[in-house]
Amino acid sequence: MREVAVIGVGMTKFGELWDMSLRDLFVEAALGAMKGAGTDSIDSIYVGNMSGGQFVGQEHLGPLMADHLGLGGVPATRVESACASGGMALRSAYLEVASGMSDLVLASGVEKMNDGADVTGVLATASDQEEEVYYGVTFPGLYAMIARAHMEKYGTTEEDMSWVSVKAHRNGAKNPHAQFRRVMSLEDVLTSSVVAEPLRLLHCSPVTDGGAAMVLCPLDRAHEFTDKPVKILASGAATSSLTLADRADPADLDVVELSGNRAYEMAGVTAEDIDVAEVHDCFAIAEICCYEALGFVEKGFGKDAAREGITDLGGKIPVNVSGGLKSKGHPVGATGIAQAVTIIEQLRGEGGEVQVEGAKIGLAQNMGGSGASSVVHIFQGV
Amino acid sequence: MREVAVIGVGMTKFGELWDMSLRDLFVEAALGAMKGAGTDSIDSIYVGNMSGGQFVGQEHLGPLMADHLGLGGVPATRVESACASGGMALRSAYLEVASGMSDLVLASGVEKMNDGADVTGVLATASDQEEEVYYGVTFPGLYAMIARAHMEKYGTTEEDMSWVSVKAHRNGAKNPHAQFRRVMSLEDVLTSSVVAEPLRLLHCSPVTDGGAAMVLCPLDRAHEFTDKPVKILASGAATSSLTLADRADPADLDVVELSGNRAYEMAGVTAEDIDVAEVHDCFAIAEICCYEALGFVEKGFGKDAAREGITDLGGKIPVNVSGGLKSKGHPVGATGIAQAVTIIEQLRGEGGEVQVEGAKIGLAQNMGGSGASSVVHIFQGV
Repeated sequence: MREVAVIGVGMTKFGELWDMSLRDLFVEAALGAMKGAGTDSIDSIYVGNMSGGQFVGQEHLGPLMADHLGLGGVPATRVESACASGGMALRSAYLEVASGMSDLVLASGVEKMNDGADVTGVLATASDQEEEVYYGVTFPGLYAMIARAHMEKYGTTEEDMSWVSVKAHRNGAKNPHAQFRRVMSLEDVLTSSVVAEPLRLLHCSPVTDGGAAMVLCPLDRAHEFTDKPVKILASGAATSSLTLADRADPADLDVVELSGNRAYEMAGVTAEDIDVAEVHDCFAIAEICCYEALGFVEKGFGKDAAREGITDLGGKIPVNVSGGLKSKGHPVGATGIAQAVTIIEQLRGEGGEVQVEGAKIGLAQNMGGSGASSVVHIFQGV
Repeated sequence: MREVAVIGVGMTKFGELWDMSLRDLFVEAALGAMKGAGTDSIDSIYVGNMSGGQFVGQEHLGPLMADHLGLGGVPATRVESACASGGMALRSAYLEVASGMSDLVLASGVEKMNDGADVTGVLATASDQEEEVYYGVTFPGLYAMIARAHMEKYGTTEEDMSWVSVKAHRNGAKNPHAQFRRVMSLEDVLTSSVVAEPLRLLHCSPVTDGGAAMVLCPLDRAHEFTDKPVKILASGAATSSLTLADRADPADLDVVELSGNRAYEMAGVTAEDIDVAEVHDCFAIAEICCYEALGFVEKGFGKDAAREGITDLGGKIPVNVSGGLKSKGHPVGATGIAQAVTIIEQLRGEGGEVQVEGAKIGLAQNMGGSGASSVVHIFQGV
């Protein structure tokens, strides 16, 4: 396989962007990435998107986006793996460059969620229609069950989850792209309204519009485009049952562990080597599970990490310095790329107020459904 | 790039399959391909699907299908490019094997269209929501405009288009997987009801449920699995504007020509070298345009090809020996894989009643929308 580098990144503001359409979001992010890479030429485009069809009545995003970017003719396709669509689009772009088929490949993700659709209903189609949706459960309910299982097995509390949200907002308040740039106190979180017990409003990521993009090229060409290329050390992907009830233990996100272990093996590193990470905190409990599944802490100690500052800026392994899905926002198809954008910026030393000093190796983990798909990328500044 | 071979293929019956769900269709096709390849082991799965979300309320098909195939854990993702979703899934699988990331990769396509959804409305979301759908046009209308432009430019007639349908049904009547195994006369076609003038019912492909799959592996391992591997010589993809009105000339499918030329160049062959082809005849006029765009005949002579037997069995270049989308059926996400299955069978000499004698090199062309995306694969028996 050819070695692959990221040479430019871009993303929109995340939020309720009523004046921007799906195509506008893509174009702004893509142009940012191309400007960063200093290139007008792209050989192939991947668009991560969960549900343009249901959110805004638009499938077939490949040619639409290529055309609106002024790159009609260029091969372009959409990749979907629910909320892991962005991460899987990055993986597809990585494989195309690694294969030798193309040199300059745009990996992107975009979602327009605020446009009148029944968002909770659309998101539910990422769970099992026949075994879950039909019976009325939606994602807050599914993650509430994961939280209950984690509480039962490891003694995790509402307060433990709330510290994750406090950390998210503390970091997100410093992120100019974030949807909710507001510090939240422990009391704010613990007194926010209940969505699906034990999950409260401030344990849940919001509904967001946004786009993110990056340009990949062979590592041996990267210095033609940038002084600060970042190498993709590994891409690890995995699936588990779509239905939560079919998992061996809903308290552990086995799909995250499997995808992480595949990535660690490919990169030749361990959790100890990761200097900064973005993980998929669609709900606060998910971040706690990810700490454990990725080996940042031992199983059962995820609950302590945020409270004890282990995953804070300045802690042993800073996680979600962007504010995470919770504060930055979660435009589902864009999230996986946006996570990677944050890691690239960190490894270039461009993290601004949330820069992790001396960060050399970073990890981005993106998940679909209640833990049915997960993809982990590991990056290194070169 | 590593050289890649197809080592096993499978597909379901195509038709109104009221007793089979989306997941059933996938599993039957995938098991057929794995049985053909003689393997229970798969490293990665791609699922081509246009709109599980809108047709049956199910996104996130990667993990769902991996799990129902008994392969939970295996990386799996969905690829979407409207009616070219299957072809783009094959391309993604090809790139993953070519890259060296994985050895045994399942490329599949599946669509469940008969399940109560507003099929015409769902399909329309593959055209431009803001510039086409909003104004009320659907695909029969878009292809009717292409037909009118072709008639105006090249003198193509309703009868010319009808000969394409007659050929499709003559071939499809011999295909045990086909939805409509019925010979149609020229009069049948010319007297069928008008759908969107000048297109009549028998110029249009039907609404179909179905699945298709194939297993890919590195060429140098292919003989471990089969005595009759088929090499993938090339994969060429392209896009054009999603909006028909934005094309330089709606009478020519420029996207097909571009994707075809990329594939010919990669394979080091020309149209003259192709012994058998499956092209995207969603409407009879599309097949005529594809003849020209792929160089099977000169521009302006596509109208004569079916009538004069050039694309018949025994003709210079037999096209759509499977019956094509018209007679075999068009489960949109599955079509691109099903076309490739037909070509693989031909190159293995397993074409049954429609075998093209001595076929060595075959081509499959799969298109999305009104010609906004196209992907061409060229295969060779080895």
